[in-house]
Amino acid sequence: MHRRLKLGMVGGGQGAFIGAVHRIAARIDDQFELVAGALSSNAERAAASAAELGIDASRSYASYEEMAKAEAARDDGIDAVSIVTPNHMHYPVAKAFLEAGINVICDKPLTSTLDDALALREVAKSSSAEFFLTHNYSGYPMVRQARDMVRSGKIGKVRKVQVEYIQDWLSAPIEAGANKQADWRTDPARSGLGGAIGDIGTHAFQLTDFICGEPLKELAADLTSFVEGRLVDDDAHMLLRYKNGAKGYLWASQVAPGHENDLRIRIYGERGGLEWRQENPNQLWVGILGEPKQLLTRGGHGTGEVAANVTRVPAGHPEGYLEGFATIYNEAADAIRNGRKSDSLSVTLDEGILGMRFIDAAIRSSKANAQWTSLGA
Amino acid sequence: MHRRLKLGMVGGGQGAFIGAVHRIAARIDDQFELVAGALSSNAERAAASAAELGIDASRSYASYEEMAKAEAARDDGIDAVSIVTPNHMHYPVAKAFLEAGINVICDKPLTSTLDDALALREVAKSSSAEFFLTHNYSGYPMVRQARDMVRSGKIGKVRKVQVEYIQDWLSAPIEAGANKQADWRTDPARSGLGGAIGDIGTHAFQLTDFICGEPLKELAADLTSFVEGRLVDDDAHMLLRYKNGAKGYLWASQVAPGHENDLRIRIYGERGGLEWRQENPNQLWVGILGEPKQLLTRGGHGTGEVAANVTRVPAGHPEGYLEGFATIYNEAADAIRNGRKSDSLSVTLDEGILGMRFIDAAIRSSKANAQWTSLGA
Amino acid sequence: MHRRLKLGMVGGGQGAFIGAVHRIAARIDDQFELVAGALSSNAERAAASAAELGIDASRSYASYEEMAKAEAARDDGIDAVSIVTPNHMHYPVAKAFLEAGINVICDKPLTSTLDDALALREVAKSSSAEFFLTHNYSGYPMVRQARDMVRSGKIGKVRKVQVEYIQDWLSAPIEAGANKQADWRTDPARSGLGGAIGDIGTHAFQLTDFICGEPLKELAADLTSFVEGRLVDDDAHMLLRYKNGAKGYLWASQVAPGHENDLRIRIYGERGGLEWRQENPNQLWVGILGEPKQLLTRGGHGTGEVAANVTRVPAGHPEGYLEGFATIYNEAADAIRNGRKSDSLSVTLDEGILGMRFIDAAIRSSKANAQWTSLGA
Amino acid sequence: MHRRLKLGMVGGGQGAFIGAVHRIAARIDDQFELVAGALSSNAERAAASAAELGIDASRSYASYEEMAKAEAARDDGIDAVSIVTPNHMHYPVAKAFLEAGINVICDKPLTSTLDDALALREVAKSSSAEFFLTHNYSGYPMVRQARDMVRSGKIGKVRKVQVEYIQDWLSAPIEAGANKQADWRTDPARSGLGGAIGDIGTHAFQLTDFICGEPLKELAADLTSFVEGRLVDDDAHMLLRYKNGAKGYLWASQVAPGHENDLRIRIYGERGGLEWRQENPNQLWVGILGEPKQLLTRGGHGTGEVAANVTRVPAGHPEGYLEGFATIYNEAADAIRNGRKSDSLSVTLDEGILGMRFIDAAIRSSKANAQWTSLGA
Repeated sequence: MHRRLKLGMVGGGQGAFIGAVHRIAARIDDQFELVAGALSSNAERAAASAAELGIDASRSYASYEEMAKAEAARDDGIDAVSIVTPNHMHYPVAKAFLEAGINVICDKPLTSTLDDALALREVAKSSSAEFFLTHNYSGYPMVRQARDMVRSGKIGKVRKVQVEYIQDWLSAPIEAGANKQADWRTDPARSGLGGAIGDIGTHAFQLTDFICGEPLKELAADLTSFVEGRLVDDDAHMLLRYKNGAKGYLWASQVAPGHENDLRIRIYGERGGLEWRQENPNQLWVGILGEPKQLLTRGGHGTGEVAANVTRVPAGHPEGYLEGFATIYNEAADAIRNGRKSDSLSVTLDEGILGMRFIDAAIRSSKANAQWTSLGA
Repeated sequence: MHRRLKLGMVGGGQGAFIGAVHRIAARIDDQFELVAGALSSNAERAAASAAELGIDASRSYASYEEMAKAEAARDDGIDAVSIVTPNHMHYPVAKAFLEAGINVICDKPLTSTLDDALALREVAKSSSAEFFLTHNYSGYPMVRQARDMVRSGKIGKVRKVQVEYIQDWLSAPIEAGANKQADWRTDPARSGLGGAIGDIGTHAFQLTDFICGEPLKELAADLTSFVEGRLVDDDAHMLLRYKNGAKGYLWASQVAPGHENDLRIRIYGERGGLEWRQENPNQLWVGILGEPKQLLTRGGHGTGEVAANVTRVPAGHPEGYLEGFATIYNEAADAIRNGRKSDSLSVTLDEGILGMRFIDAAIRSSKANAQWTSLGA
Repeated sequence: MHRRLKLGMVGGGQGAFIGAVHRIAARIDDQFELVAGALSSNAERAAASAAELGIDASRSYASYEEMAKAEAARDDGIDAVSIVTPNHMHYPVAKAFLEAGINVICDKPLTSTLDDALALREVAKSSSAEFFLTHNYSGYPMVRQARDMVRSGKIGKVRKVQVEYIQDWLSAPIEAGANKQADWRTDPARSGLGGAIGDIGTHAFQLTDFICGEPLKELAADLTSFVEGRLVDDDAHMLLRYKNGAKGYLWASQVAPGHENDLRIRIYGERGGLEWRQENPNQLWVGILGEPKQLLTRGGHGTGEVAANVTRVPAGHPEGYLEGFATIYNEAADAIRNGRKSDSLSVTLDEGILGMRFIDAAIRSSKANAQWTSLGA
Repeated sequence: MHRRLKLGMVGGGQGAFIGAVHRIAARIDDQFELVAGALSSNAERAAASAAELGIDASRSYASYEEMAKAEAARDDGIDAVSIVTPNHMHYPVAKAFLEAGINVICDKPLTSTLDDALALREVAKSSSAEFFLTHNYSGYPMVRQARDMVRSGKIGKVRKVQVEYIQDWLSAPIEAGANKQADWRTDPARSGLGGAIGDIGTHAFQLTDFICGEPLKELAADLTSFVEGRLVDDDAHMLLRYKNGAKGYLWASQVAPGHENDLRIRIYGERGGLEWRQENPNQLWVGILGEPKQLLTRGGHGTGEVAANVTRVPAGHPEGYLEGFATIYNEAADAIRNGRKSDSLSVTLDEGILGMRFIDAAIRSSKANAQWTSLGA
């Protein structure tokens, strides 16, 4: 008999963006119901947001500490908490819930500093609860297809990885105005030392890792703040070298006019190449040497089971961002119910730490004039 | 305070396609919760399906008649029922619930015959309940944008409407095998007299009507069953003439290899043209005479409020088929809560009847060698 | 040893469009040199145009009659004449040269009336010279590829042919102004009874015939003059029925805002479908049932010899309109040098007559309220 | 009165690729006629090639030295020579003709070593003749449009330049076989030290320079020979820094499966972005902050005079690679006839030297582990 998991949320009150995304993602496949929350650090807004969302007033908390304690004490306490705060709060909130034995589903990047990330790992080691990081782009069916093709050798040994994630919304100094997203995302105290590199560069990096799985040897990064007065980078690009000899390029930018949320990855191997683009996510271009180019589609001919497994509607009925996000929630639900297995695709804390090392290495490399820098550890 | 509407469902048990779609659509924006069902005419499958979906066994019914009666009698009875059966059952089921005073959300086409459709209208007139038809493609944000642009005169007086809805899944005689979808959709007794014309042609027709709102004067249709032995048309195309002098072309096909679910509409007026394609639904091409072509995007610059109102995530984060469908459910929820208003966009029974007249006229025209035929009434 | 053919030209003086195209096409592959001309009916403009083009003054003629006579009399007279006048002059000019025993390369459509076309056939029968019609779009390599795939059965028996050729340059009544092209192309006395149907509809029709080769049984056409006061159709569309049971749709429009020269053809058979678009002519989409979609490219893998034979540069180096046109000239040169062979692809006078029958039938059908009409003969 | 310039050619005999391209380019706009040649270092092949091309036997030379001397001595000697040999011969051949006072039109890259390039500059200084380098991609109309938009400030101060030129034809070790192109292009003795960086990277670099005109401060390059045993790089990528603070990325690869001749450039400024792709060259994407994206087309609305000036046919009639190449020849013809002017767009020897410095700097940087390296001088 079907039983929804009980979900709490920290952050995501009125006016937030990513909280609503998590709530829809949790709901799409009916695996979770939202029953508790500390939705805002502002008590009034927290209560109003909870009421709007149908959370009983008794389970709308003024602070995440109180929530962790109270929910852990209830017989019908939450099975998991979603953390959708600004980055600098990920660590203390995750710590509180992990220590209370409650599973954590956390937005990316893992934390705002590498130190926090490493500390969180120690917390997690002593906890009975699981930690999941919502690198949602790895939930897209055609990303799964790409991963399967690369890992099964369809394109041969990988030679080149080209990934970019570019936007234009920070092309002008809008943080000077009232844009709430721009405000915290360009403030090092809340966002972390990285700007574009942390906000979207980590998504790009995780996507390469998710698809290829090749360990990075070193990177040579050049980070820039093109908008005058901006405190963090708004454009970051770098050369990559993998341990197996492959090379790569990663570019994250929030000052690329004409691009909305343009995450694109291309992978070239000895026998073939792949191209996927987030803004048209139901397609995957495949070029095998000596053959005509093919356009694989979600649900279409030539697209395999790993994609079909995370698909809801037939070919030609486009799925989008929310469905990809929902897949991450589904996989977390499955791991919560059945125990985490080695082949779980839900993103781990270790992958979150790798992402933090990536940000850290990119910033160090850039400060050292794009010197080759390893991710460390 | 937020309160979800209580939803029941008829049809949509294990193995069905469109039932699951309706359930996700109802859930995405948290407006409905599924609490009752007569999910299959097979009692065992009905019960198993209900259990899987978390419907309490006491509200899993063996027949829709029983369900209508029982739910109408409960204090906490359902606010609405979703009808997701094969077409020929739409009429009796809708009748039962409307007569029980329960709002109906029904999959398209309205019924399997024009007679049933007209009879249903009489039923609805005497009912206190509302009727909604889920022509989901009119829920896409960029379809709303197109509608707004056409109706506000942005492209001038409309001259030409070109719509096509083409698929390839019936290119071979698969109804001879075990494909459940192919089986009932090609059986006139369950699907109605039309094949492609009823299954997808009505979507195409509704889309033209939704966007342009111009009454059709007459059509000249040529319907074909290309696959030997097929009992209904698998390809239907026709010339259109509108009362205001505009002309058009509509093509529905299920034997067009290389096309998955390719619904595409183009509208040309005195000053500009528009193009929208369902398989890449977050874009709308706009060509204004004397200007460069523009690519409007959901959430992007130049796209207006009518689209934004039915949008969940920012530009560049693609929404898809399920979100468009969810918008239809949201509008039904709003109408159920607040009373149907003249500007409600939820599809009406009258539009369903227009769709049935369209199928009927197309079949009559084709039988008369593509003679010009009006929709009647 | 290489020897260029000697070419003359009638029409194509200063200010004309298509004359310059023919001259470049004749020159690209070095098969022709332009040595004579009656470039304008205005003597002064004729002489000035000839001087500009490097034609010796002694071979710049004041009239085509004089030119035909003089060139036929010379030992080093022209091998062929290109006719690039307005449509109504095609017949008398072609007649003069054919009667003088000089090969004719003529722009389309064949003539301005069907009577002229039939008369021209009689002239041609008694002439020793060859006649070539420059339906240039059949010169594109990927059109050749499509033809080869259809005719060799790659997509199975053809069921559906969808062709459109749409432009927007006549969306407003520009013939009222000084646009020379708009002026004669919308004047029935010079252009013929058809507007869009004759100017571009014939190209679309010829393309279907070139690729598929299926004889048309009948058509049901609806022609419209959307621009007030226009004397010819500016939009023409029609249902098609082929003798073998295939169906089709053809649309020609010059009032479709947002389209420049958008000739597009799709062909669907029992086993696969093809799509080609003139504005991006180096690609051909192929969809075979049960396989992923393929994108064939000029010179790329999977594209065969018939395309390679009419290709100049490697894959990825785009060829365009002029190269496709040049191929028609090359094939004419080959036929002139070596005699016309049964497998020559240069467009014949008979195909030109078929095109005139098509225009004639479309106009007759439209006048009879889109009655089914055969091409006759 | 029109008079064609007399052209000679060195290299480009039977079996060569680029020679035929130059000949068509020279012919398209009727500015040149080919009258002399030293088409091959193999005397027999030289004579046979000349005969095929209609070059009089008396002007088919066995060596370029002889040709330079003989043509300089003739009253009707050639106005210019096209050099289409492998790279290492550019220098001696160009030297011979410049010293003979004959204008030179030379394929890129300028030479095979930087030393040769600098020596050639000295030769050119003492010569009365002009030198033109055929960086043909700068002849495309929409590249001209991009240049005009960037230089006139339409996109604001440039921040980011992203260029890539990728192919797949060297993904496997085909130089081991009989491929003539692969053979010399991967041989350092004939091609120069650079592989992909010299063959196509220089095109990419020149395109950035042509459009933006910003001087490069330094680059950090990583060159790779992915194919075992290959003597030159087959993949080269690098970070760029411009003197004005802009940043960039350049990637040249011949081992990117699925790409034929995929040269693509994107430029982002403070107010807008541009994107152009060689394989679909008649389009230019423009994204201005706060406006919908626009698709400019060759000849279309919003595309200006600088593009129109190098255009032959109307919008929607695609021009391609050969037409872009022809524009370079036209501009050379104009400079030869009227004297080179400061605003001539024909590519200069100095730009060729810049290209050689680019190759040289990239190789030096890569050998020094991608150390930041300036172009020098």
